[in-house]
Amino acid sequence: MNEECISCECQKIENMIRHTIWSAGKSRIVIGISGGIDSAVAAGLSAKAIGGGNVYGYMLPSDVTPKEDIEDGRALCEKFGINFLVVPITEIQKAFETLTGYEETDYLRGNLMARIRMTALYYFANRDSALVCGTSNRSEYMLGYSTKHGDDSADIQPLLHLLKKDVRAVASEISVPQAIIDKKPSAGLYKGQSDEDEIGHTYDSIDRAIENLEANSYMPENEEEKSILELIKKAAHKRTGPPNLLKTE
Amino acid sequence: MNEECISCECQKIENMIRHTIWSAGKSRIVIGISGGIDSAVAAGLSAKAIGGGNVYGYMLPSDVTPKEDIEDGRALCEKFGINFLVVPITEIQKAFETLTGYEETDYLRGNLMARIRMTALYYFANRDSALVCGTSNRSEYMLGYSTKHGDDSADIQPLLHLLKKDVRAVASEISVPQAIIDKKPSAGLYKGQSDEDEIGHTYDSIDRAIENLEANSYMPENEEEKSILELIKKAAHKRTGPPNLLKTE
Repeated sequence: MNEECISCECQKIENMIRHTIWSAGKSRIVIGISGGIDSAVAAGLSAKAIGGGNVYGYMLPSDVTPKEDIEDGRALCEKFGINFLVVPITEIQKAFETLTGYEETDYLRGNLMARIRMTALYYFANRDSALVCGTSNRSEYMLGYSTKHGDDSADIQPLLHLLKKDVRAVASEISVPQAIIDKKPSAGLYKGQSDEDEIGHTYDSIDRAIENLEANSYMPENEEEKSILELIKKAAHKRTGPPNLLKTE
Repeated sequence: MNEECISCECQKIENMIRHTIWSAGKSRIVIGISGGIDSAVAAGLSAKAIGGGNVYGYMLPSDVTPKEDIEDGRALCEKFGINFLVVPITEIQKAFETLTGYEETDYLRGNLMARIRMTALYYFANRDSALVCGTSNRSEYMLGYSTKHGDDSADIQPLLHLLKKDVRAVASEISVPQAIIDKKPSAGLYKGQSDEDEIGHTYDSIDRAIENLEANSYMPENEEEKSILELIKKAAHKRTGPPNLLKTE
């Protein structure tokens, strides 16, 4: 996208946010702030769309959340005039740990954290008659790099059509703090987690592969595209609804 | 549906369950058991499809869950050879109550409980490499009588095409215990809750209205149909995905 396109893209997204809020009869947005670029961009655009005073940015730290993420989240919200709230989820995690048969792996704990956060965000949204704004981008959506009924669940998904590189471009356009733009992407579900290490591909490769696959009717042209196409296929269940026998919608 | 149709319907649903399990590369189902008819039918059909030994029925009581619901759930699982586990969610609810700004209404508490249960079911499913089976029927799906990202969220929805009366017919066909069939429908989210009181229509009226509306291209022909159509429209956001600008799927 060239600069003019990016500015026009922001307008489209802001309009979509306003329309969704209006059509739901609401005036507020609740959003989970992680200190990363996706939630920063989604929150920034929400603030531009409906005013920062109507946006509630919840940082929901666990005991593996780096202090600097909280500070980056705070700086972001200050910049866009967003209400910033820090609500630790540690006590809720501990309560889940008391369930009969509870065991822990990074995978189990990570998914649990994502669903606890969704549940907390919806609690606040229900209480304050707000919509929950999602922060999923197209790269992670295609790869299914998210927790089903966790961080992928929201009432509006303003970034779902943007590849990671587009999110970065929009972040610069709306002046997201540089520390957030430069940060290594991480789902933040365990210490030292890196999206790119975990996926096994860089976002640059992922974005390039998605674009090439789309241009070539999903026929992979090299080993990397083949491998990324496999991830896309495996995640189909996260993009479609649950199998059922109702065909009307 | 006449009796032959019902038996054929059960076959179709069991095939769909088997196909979904096979296509996901899994062999087990996790399902929330409430003591009500929907979860009884979904669990019974799951057991018939893949064998009760591969089905894990979780009763997740809160302090408002009647003891007889637990006993009805136990009897159901015994009948179908389903593994039955009782895991109270009270400690998790209490942990949510410690969140800054926590307040309680039936609505807030009910939605929270539904999302806690979803999170617990997915925890067990993730741990045991199982799919989560949903229990939504078509009557409540159309009306949106469910918690978004709560009891409406699952990996498979075997009853989604069945009106409440069809669920009752299938329940008799597969010999769900009579106490469950005769029970007054309740989401069980607060003491004395009744689906029909809360919705303001009986399931008989709802089912009749949905069938008439469908037959007449959603043109209501009386006040009751008009009122039910309004509920159907208001719940559209629960049936469609979140608004976004990605148009490819």
